[in-house]
Amino acid sequence: MKKIIIYIILVLLYYSCHKEASDNIPCPAAQPEKTIILNELKHPWSICFLDETDVLITEKDGNLIRADLNKKTRTIIEGFPADLADSIRVKDFRDNSGIFEVIKHPDFKSNRLIYISYAAQNNTGTTTKIIRAKLENDKLNEIQPIFIAEPFSADLFHYGGGMTFGKDGKLYFTIGERLYNERDEPPLPIAQDLSDKRGKIYRLNSDGSVPEDNPDFGSNAQAGIYALGIRAAQGITVNPANGSIWFSEHGSTQGDELNLLQKGANYGWPIKTSGKYRNPEYQAPPMEGTAFTEPVHYWLQTIAPTGLVFYTGKAFPGWNGDIILSGLSRGSLWRIHLEENQVISVEELFVNDRVRSRKVALSPNGKLYILTDEKNGKLVEIRNAANNN
Amino acid sequence: MKKIIIYIILVLLYYSCHKEASDNIPCPAAQPEKTIILNELKHPWSICFLDETDVLITEKDGNLIRADLNKKTRTIIEGFPADLADSIRVKDFRDNSGIFEVIKHPDFKSNRLIYISYAAQNNTGTTTKIIRAKLENDKLNEIQPIFIAEPFSADLFHYGGGMTFGKDGKLYFTIGERLYNERDEPPLPIAQDLSDKRGKIYRLNSDGSVPEDNPDFGSNAQAGIYALGIRAAQGITVNPANGSIWFSEHGSTQGDELNLLQKGANYGWPIKTSGKYRNPEYQAPPMEGTAFTEPVHYWLQTIAPTGLVFYTGKAFPGWNGDIILSGLSRGSLWRIHLEENQVISVEELFVNDRVRSRKVALSPNGKLYILTDEKNGKLVEIRNAANNN
Repeated sequence: MKKIIIYIILVLLYYSCHKEASDNIPCPAAQPEKTIILNELKHPWSICFLDETDVLITEKDGNLIRADLNKKTRTIIEGFPADLADSIRVKDFRDNSGIFEVIKHPDFKSNRLIYISYAAQNNTGTTTKIIRAKLENDKLNEIQPIFIAEPFSADLFHYGGGMTFGKDGKLYFTIGERLYNERDEPPLPIAQDLSDKRGKIYRLNSDGSVPEDNPDFGSNAQAGIYALGIRAAQGITVNPANGSIWFSEHGSTQGDELNLLQKGANYGWPIKTSGKYRNPEYQAPPMEGTAFTEPVHYWLQTIAPTGLVFYTGKAFPGWNGDIILSGLSRGSLWRIHLEENQVISVEELFVNDRVRSRKVALSPNGKLYILTDEKNGKLVEIRNAANNN
Repeated sequence: MKKIIIYIILVLLYYSCHKEASDNIPCPAAQPEKTIILNELKHPWSICFLDETDVLITEKDGNLIRADLNKKTRTIIEGFPADLADSIRVKDFRDNSGIFEVIKHPDFKSNRLIYISYAAQNNTGTTTKIIRAKLENDKLNEIQPIFIAEPFSADLFHYGGGMTFGKDGKLYFTIGERLYNERDEPPLPIAQDLSDKRGKIYRLNSDGSVPEDNPDFGSNAQAGIYALGIRAAQGITVNPANGSIWFSEHGSTQGDELNLLQKGANYGWPIKTSGKYRNPEYQAPPMEGTAFTEPVHYWLQTIAPTGLVFYTGKAFPGWNGDIILSGLSRGSLWRIHLEENQVISVEELFVNDRVRSRKVALSPNGKLYILTDEKNGKLVEIRNAANNN
């Protein structure tokens, strides 16, 4: 009798085991869904996670704030530089000025250093400026200028301002060429002119000095240039798998791109474009013999790409290593799958729920967020309804 | 002692059970890869699976053939109608004429009936023609005309010719408006003119007669019309989950669409378009008061959509229920995820390996295939390297 009971138990255990394995729910398709975490952000541009729920957010048309994602409280960080170009006062609806990126130093926990890019103004006009400061008691202390992209000008566009630290501990940032229309290009276009600070990507030490292993563009070149030929780039991010750096760029008429950052590369604007010029009569100088670097990917339609991040969270295991990238025009959100730096597939997410977006970010624990570019701007978390993560 | 042994066995079984569950390889991301099954097909247009490896294929610029996918043998089906417009003889590189779709009757196994659409010609010109025939001994027997889209004309474009049987057993097919440029539109545009056979989607009984429950467009309307306002549609397919019918459509300048077929609907061409006209001066009559049906999705860029199918195979479980759709221009392949007839996400696959494609099809066992639109055209199987299916 005992033997029979034991045998029955063993058989039941065996089948319950195999039933468990064979009844495994097959891999459910990703079901991304949005949850609003914060709203009433004035055209938010950037988010920096001090920890999982303690964040800094820049409002392009407002302030640098600190927010608690659980309590939903927010505080304006005091001491913002007085030379901020206040884009709210400007009457041009196309005005790009305001506060752009905020990132923290890799050793923030010990040195409390944060870096901010914004449009600074003087009597002549505005330009892109980068400062660093110690964040203490919700105030910016010991503010130091890191970079100013002279000249200050009346142009209100294409400041760039995207920033990231590389795995090498260096500060990388983008400065746009600042023009709206190609007819305003000088004979040697701004982004091609190494003596002009605009239209470039820079690599600096965290104190603003120039690394010794930067590319050597000659004595006429502005200090710190890492790459040139940039029209308007805002999103820049590191691939954590291999340390490579990627950036998005706005074309003129179409021509929006995803690029891989390479030392000394010339990304071609305005000699080369994946789209067309705003000004059909514009003729760029040929610059024969110049080696230009092609984008890894470009879109046929306008998407106005902004922020991007390499996804490493747990909610969407099928997205691991993919780029998630946001756009302004038509408010699209993209998932880009790469293999060995080549684009394999490109997916537009939330086709039924588009919203102009400025930033894509991951929290320290891998939660996926976007910032929407609206007057009533939102921090939105993207979760996976298929697994509740 | 026996109790201890039994206890050890039970514990081992328990842990082996749970180890099996916890060590499950997490859901791998889809890794679609292509395998060429047949080549040297002359611009293949359609594939019809008589069984898993016994297929009919139409070559737009060749023949109706029967092929064995294992042995890789092929046979030309004899008895093709003599009025086939031979597009090889035509010198216009834009010529759309030739053999288009081949499908089988739902009861093919007993009645051996297949349906073929093609460009037929007479002294006046060409038009879209649909025939049915019994396939016996690799020959077309008892050929019957089902539909002829008079007038025959000199135009070489936009024949349509996409065909499918619905779950209701009726034959659905598309006839394009045949024009290349809007300047050739009559005052009442062809696709809007119910007395004109062109630019319409039809629903007929399998013998070519008109079903009693077709929409009633009045006594001036051509028999069998189910929907109107169609410019150039080739792909038409049934959603097996619910019987709904979907079709793709080529816009003029951009304006490519995915549409849900609805009884009596007016899809708007040329009054409504998601893109622009080829002829910038064209002004469509306003036709106030007409109810037009919007596409479910349209592309901002040109993709020239052709065939489409709802994926139900096993290789890509994450794609179940999604539309896979091919394109000519730039040779893109798309995966479209819908929920309740609304597009949620749109993914371009094989961005690094584009090829002009005419058809997407599933074998009876759910294998995924495409036909490439090339002089050396190919039947390509798409498998999932992540699970070897």
